Amino acid sequence: MKSLIRLMTWPHQQKLLSRTLGLQKTASCRHCSQQQTIEARHFKQNPLTFTEDKFNGVTVDLAQIPVEKSEYDFQNILEDALLEWKSLGKRAVWLKVPIQQGRFIPVAARKGFTFHHAEGDSAMLTLWMDNTTESRLPRYATHQVGVAGFVLNEKTGEVVVVMDKHRKRPLWKFPGGLSDLGEDIENTAEREVFEETGIRAKYQSILTMRQHHDHPSAFGRSDIYIICRLSPETYDLHPCSTEISACQWMHVKELLSHEDTSSLTKTLCKLALYGLEEGFDKVDISSEIHESIYQGYQFKLFHRPLPKKWS
Amino acid sequence: MKSLIRLMTWPHQQKLLSRTLGLQKTASCRHCSQQQTIEARHFKQNPLTFTEDKFNGVTVDLAQIPVEKSEYDFQNILEDALLEWKSLGKRAVWLKVPIQQGRFIPVAARKGFTFHHAEGDSAMLTLWMDNTTESRLPRYATHQVGVAGFVLNEKTGEVVVVMDKHRKRPLWKFPGGLSDLGEDIENTAEREVFEETGIRAKYQSILTMRQHHDHPSAFGRSDIYIICRLSPETYDLHPCSTEISACQWMHVKELLSHEDTSSLTKTLCKLALYGLEEGFDKVDISSEIHESIYQGYQFKLFHRPLPKKWS
Repeated sequence: MKSLIRLMTWPHQQKLLSRTLGLQKTASCRHCSQQQTIEARHFKQNPLTFTEDKFNGVTVDLAQIPVEKSEYDFQNILEDALLEWKSLGKRAVWLKVPIQQGRFIPVAARKGFTFHHAEGDSAMLTLWMDNTTESRLPRYATHQVGVAGFVLNEKTGEVVVVMDKHRKRPLWKFPGGLSDLGEDIENTAEREVFEETGIRAKYQSILTMRQHHDHPSAFGRSDIYIICRLSPETYDLHPCSTEISACQWMHVKELLSHEDTSSLTKTLCKLALYGLEEGFDKVDISSEIHESIYQGYQFKLFHRPLPKKWS
Repeated sequence: MKSLIRLMTWPHQQKLLSRTLGLQKTASCRHCSQQQTIEARHFKQNPLTFTEDKFNGVTVDLAQIPVEKSEYDFQNILEDALLEWKSLGKRAVWLKVPIQQGRFIPVAARKGFTFHHAEGDSAMLTLWMDNTTESRLPRYATHQVGVAGFVLNEKTGEVVVVMDKHRKRPLWKFPGGLSDLGEDIENTAEREVFEETGIRAKYQSILTMRQHHDHPSAFGRSDIYIICRLSPETYDLHPCSTEISACQWMHVKELLSHEDTSSLTKTLCKLALYGLEEGFDKVDISSEIHESIYQGYQFKLFHRPLPKKWS
């Protein structure tokens, strides 16, 4: 989509911008000095630089508004801009607001804007202007992704389990945590196992994926939790003292019958026992890398392994 | 986590709050009128109502600040509060800002606050106060989740394919779209198939999951795209004219060899042909419902089917 967004070259915009921002709405336009009526219309028109997208929306970065402008100035600028976009048949406005320009947020809110998302030093506000349909704007990210490692010693049938320090009723579980932004699933699994237990282990496959809505620690979003099968490369435990209250190798059968485990943990035990008995090809979800249709990007695709004739 | 958050009952807080907000910092406190020195300290202390969490953080809702308060008033209030939290050894502050109170955002930013997330009519700002470590605050949701339906007529070997209206170079793909907040994967698959093609189809299993970082239409977040196997219950196509430029039943073998498809689509064709030849138990990722450890919640767990003796 990025490549389709282009900068609008508004007629005379650069010349008019500074004047309109200065609220000298009666100043003359050098580019159409012989047509006073058109000139007047120009000054009533949109003083904001904006980009257009293929869904008939516009995006405006409020970093362009000089710091000395008041909320009242901005209200006038925004009102003119909205009239212009409406007349152009625009359906949506995206307003990028630097955190230092936060004083303009209530002004935009009075015109119907709401927060779409925000992070770090800027917020994005949106306004849906097409009264004929409900908003078709996509919602911001809806899921956090956590990954845990099922580190199985296939010779002994033991798996690494931990107890979380911050739980009221701690349960034996697998070391894991949230993926960083842009981090691959297998990298999160290997990193979290190492950070929490000191064990170096190698990603093999995905065993389970959980979708949990209204997750209590996801700020109202949903949670996807993926548990991967890992093969240990080291065996000595050096648990993280800030996050982990207990850590040990435990036989999968003992874990399966343990009181202090969840149903999710027990399902993992069953999958592991099935794999140990009949081969992990029965339970593994494997992956390969594909080239994205978006040039320069790759992605991981997870699915059941295909027979050789298909791969 | 929610249940562990409790409202702080600050000594004399309710009595002091209105006065401090009124900036009458020299007014007397009825509850300790005989101890002038303590009273004076009270008025320098935190005038904000806040909640504590188990990670040693505090959360403040700025809805409590009267609308007539200026940015300067808020700056004084916030400075006193920060001093207090610092002295209490608090590590993090979460500031919930109603959109109408946006004028306080730049004030908080000057004290080091940044946006954590925002949606609708409020933003959440954060400040990490523990100088001994980097911020340990969890990031907001990192993924959008899209779901598509592979609607296969097992008798004819045909699958429903569509072309997207908004693509520069349209490809044959499977009907799908973003999950709504809180929507189950299988429900998105069935809903999107119906909305885009008019076909009623029943969810059977997950076939593939793709993780794509820096996805161009995810506002800088990552994208998880899940393709589900569905069985058609109706066969007449009524494609959505706003989203779809073409829609048809196509034989899986034809789609596999088609020029206008992605490598992801081709992998799905191979999985389907494998399933048609040797049974879908070879390729299906199935699911069941579990009770969450968070009381009152359930979740879906996706994994390879277990033999009867384990389930």
